[in-house]
Amino acid sequence: MTRRNVLYAQSGGVTAVINASACGVIETARKHRDVIGRVFAANNGILGVLTEELIDTGKESARAIAGLRSTPSGAFGSCRYKLKSLEESEREYHRLIEVFRAHDIGYFLYNGGGDSQDTAHKVSQVGKRLGYPVRCVGIPKTIDNDLPFTDTCPGFGSVAKYVAVSVREAAMDVASMCETSTKVFILEVMGRHAGWISAAGGLAADKPGDAPHVIVFPEVPFSKVRFLRKVKKTVDTRGFCVIVVSEGARYADGRFLADAGNLDAFGHVQLGGAAPTIAAMINDKHGYKYHWAVADYLQRAARHIASKTDVDQAYAVGKAAVERAVRGDDGIMVTIRRTSDSPYRWTVGEVPLHRVANVERTMPKSYISKDGFGITARARRYLAPLIRGEDYPRYKQGLPQYTRLKAELTAKKLPAFSVEA
Amino acid sequence: MTRRNVLYAQSGGVTAVINASACGVIETARKHRDVIGRVFAANNGILGVLTEELIDTGKESARAIAGLRSTPSGAFGSCRYKLKSLEESEREYHRLIEVFRAHDIGYFLYNGGGDSQDTAHKVSQVGKRLGYPVRCVGIPKTIDNDLPFTDTCPGFGSVAKYVAVSVREAAMDVASMCETSTKVFILEVMGRHAGWISAAGGLAADKPGDAPHVIVFPEVPFSKVRFLRKVKKTVDTRGFCVIVVSEGARYADGRFLADAGNLDAFGHVQLGGAAPTIAAMINDKHGYKYHWAVADYLQRAARHIASKTDVDQAYAVGKAAVERAVRGDDGIMVTIRRTSDSPYRWTVGEVPLHRVANVERTMPKSYISKDGFGITARARRYLAPLIRGEDYPRYKQGLPQYTRLKAELTAKKLPAFSVEA
Repeated sequence: MTRRNVLYAQSGGVTAVINASACGVIETARKHRDVIGRVFAANNGILGVLTEELIDTGKESARAIAGLRSTPSGAFGSCRYKLKSLEESEREYHRLIEVFRAHDIGYFLYNGGGDSQDTAHKVSQVGKRLGYPVRCVGIPKTIDNDLPFTDTCPGFGSVAKYVAVSVREAAMDVASMCETSTKVFILEVMGRHAGWISAAGGLAADKPGDAPHVIVFPEVPFSKVRFLRKVKKTVDTRGFCVIVVSEGARYADGRFLADAGNLDAFGHVQLGGAAPTIAAMINDKHGYKYHWAVADYLQRAARHIASKTDVDQAYAVGKAAVERAVRGDDGIMVTIRRTSDSPYRWTVGEVPLHRVANVERTMPKSYISKDGFGITARARRYLAPLIRGEDYPRYKQGLPQYTRLKAELTAKKLPAFSVEA
Repeated sequence: MTRRNVLYAQSGGVTAVINASACGVIETARKHRDVIGRVFAANNGILGVLTEELIDTGKESARAIAGLRSTPSGAFGSCRYKLKSLEESEREYHRLIEVFRAHDIGYFLYNGGGDSQDTAHKVSQVGKRLGYPVRCVGIPKTIDNDLPFTDTCPGFGSVAKYVAVSVREAAMDVASMCETSTKVFILEVMGRHAGWISAAGGLAADKPGDAPHVIVFPEVPFSKVRFLRKVKKTVDTRGFCVIVVSEGARYADGRFLADAGNLDAFGHVQLGGAAPTIAAMINDKHGYKYHWAVADYLQRAARHIASKTDVDQAYAVGKAAVERAVRGDDGIMVTIRRTSDSPYRWTVGEVPLHRVANVERTMPKSYISKDGFGITARARRYLAPLIRGEDYPRYKQGLPQYTRLKAELTAKKLPAFSVEA
């Protein structure tokens, strides 16, 4: 059989486990020497393909590649660069195929969210149109958990675990001090379009009444009156109130809470966050002492508290992508299929890329409690297995030892290409 | 020998390891049945002593007490309530002794920061004056690391580890995306008066040029011009810039950065944080895309990533407090003594409480680099051992299993006492 090369690329916001997928790809590819020649990784995602900056992963030791499994961030660099329709971005799609041809890429594995799956689909189409044979397989990744046809998206489970653990810990802190000090604690989490991450905060509670007492979802139009009433009732009953708020929380008219007219010293609107905004609301109405935290990148980079389930799934989709490409699959995205809730069991599946493109998976309404401020038993059943298991990185001198690759670029063979940002 | 009872109380802001000190106290007291009768813990700190709300730790199983070692927050509740001078707070001091007498307290162990050590000292004096024999021993605790005569304060090492790990992880995230996305990441950390915690962020770097690239200390008057220049230079050289800013950072005239005139939708000043403030500054001047995080309580509650050194020391000072009280010591605070930097070695020492009261330990100038934005080798030598070792809590279903006590109050024997808040 002819040996052809693999090109793997990471796309969009990175996660605590996207490198575990890379590890799955490279380790598996190395086991298929009969059909796979070299394994390249694009430098900074699809940009690196366009500019022909291909990292030769063959230069990395087995140990370095194994280390990727427990290294957060994007080891090869990622980017936010979206290819448009075949017509609008024709020049780029053709360039991709040109680069593939120059480096004999027979397998293109694209690791990202919805936009990336769309790109992978189009690359597959363009390859066919131009008569260049390449097997395109999408590998799911997004902390937003919004890809369709996969039970969950690698990256989400670890953010979910970080948020649940952080809420549980901070709530205990507030509980022990609330008699004379802080009565309200607010944690702002990511998820601009969907409340998956904020819902995960609900896992911190073991039983009714446990923190978090209020979750502010992007799916539920924010009512200041109802929210403030709920906070007061919680403080009256429990002595304190722990709130998880999504950065995407918004009023009925669509305005983000975070954009509710906050001005910084320079008159900028950008300063705010949802957490400080609702903190100020609460203080204004009830006068409670409050604290707020904004987790931001910490939540998606927190490999130190990654979910083992998530790490295993991230690795598995990388591995499966190679195996399927090798056996002849093209134009598919690998998925996680849940076969049982309890005990939790999953396997790897697949879906044609054309079905994935431009479909966003929103959180079911049945996951949000009737009053709009909590999660249901059904949400718990779905979410709970995703944060299970710990998968600690190696530590040295008290700090996690994350892998740094050599990331040597292979020699270019083509004229330069100008990327239009 | 007569058996007398122990009263243990937690004070001020709680930490990830103050319960490890409680564990050290109770487990050690249980080994001294010859001289120690019951072990009480005040409900909500000194407030619980004044109101005679004493938790009978004898009702807790050995397993529950052992679980305190890995449980964050204050298991018995803590409070912010400061007793003043002997003259101003005479009524309170007398009440404390009255409660001691009612419950035959022979050992008062007070676990807190500078103010608490001052209170412990005064209680010891009042006991003598009123002819009531009680041995008062202070147990150090504060994430601020500002107690004198102890090499470090239990609680600090775990915050330091949390901050160093978080900076390392978030920096990798930014590094992988900076080509097309976020160029500046800012983490705001605690430490209103001293830069110990922000300095710990510096441990994230393995070698020169590693993140964090800029640390904004409360000790160094903030110069916007110099700061913005440093950020630009870093982005120009490294492609991105990671900043750790202390919540206590301030201008030369004493104004906090966080109070630099930020207004929320209601015209409040309180909204800001140092991180969003400098983020806006950077965006205004250089236009870089930025992200910021505010760790707030997450950093001091993060038992999941506690420093083993810190946990061991927290336990050790609790244990030593009982041992010293039993052997007859009174009016001392237990300390951590460093006997060697490399290999790191420490032992438990002590200092008379009257020397501790009202002395704040600031960070040496020699710990801050010449340009004011980094830490020196000397700071590293001091800080590095404090974050060493991991001490993971037990997990179940993906979440840390922290101990909840029964916390049964013992019967009151005195008339009620009204506490003036």
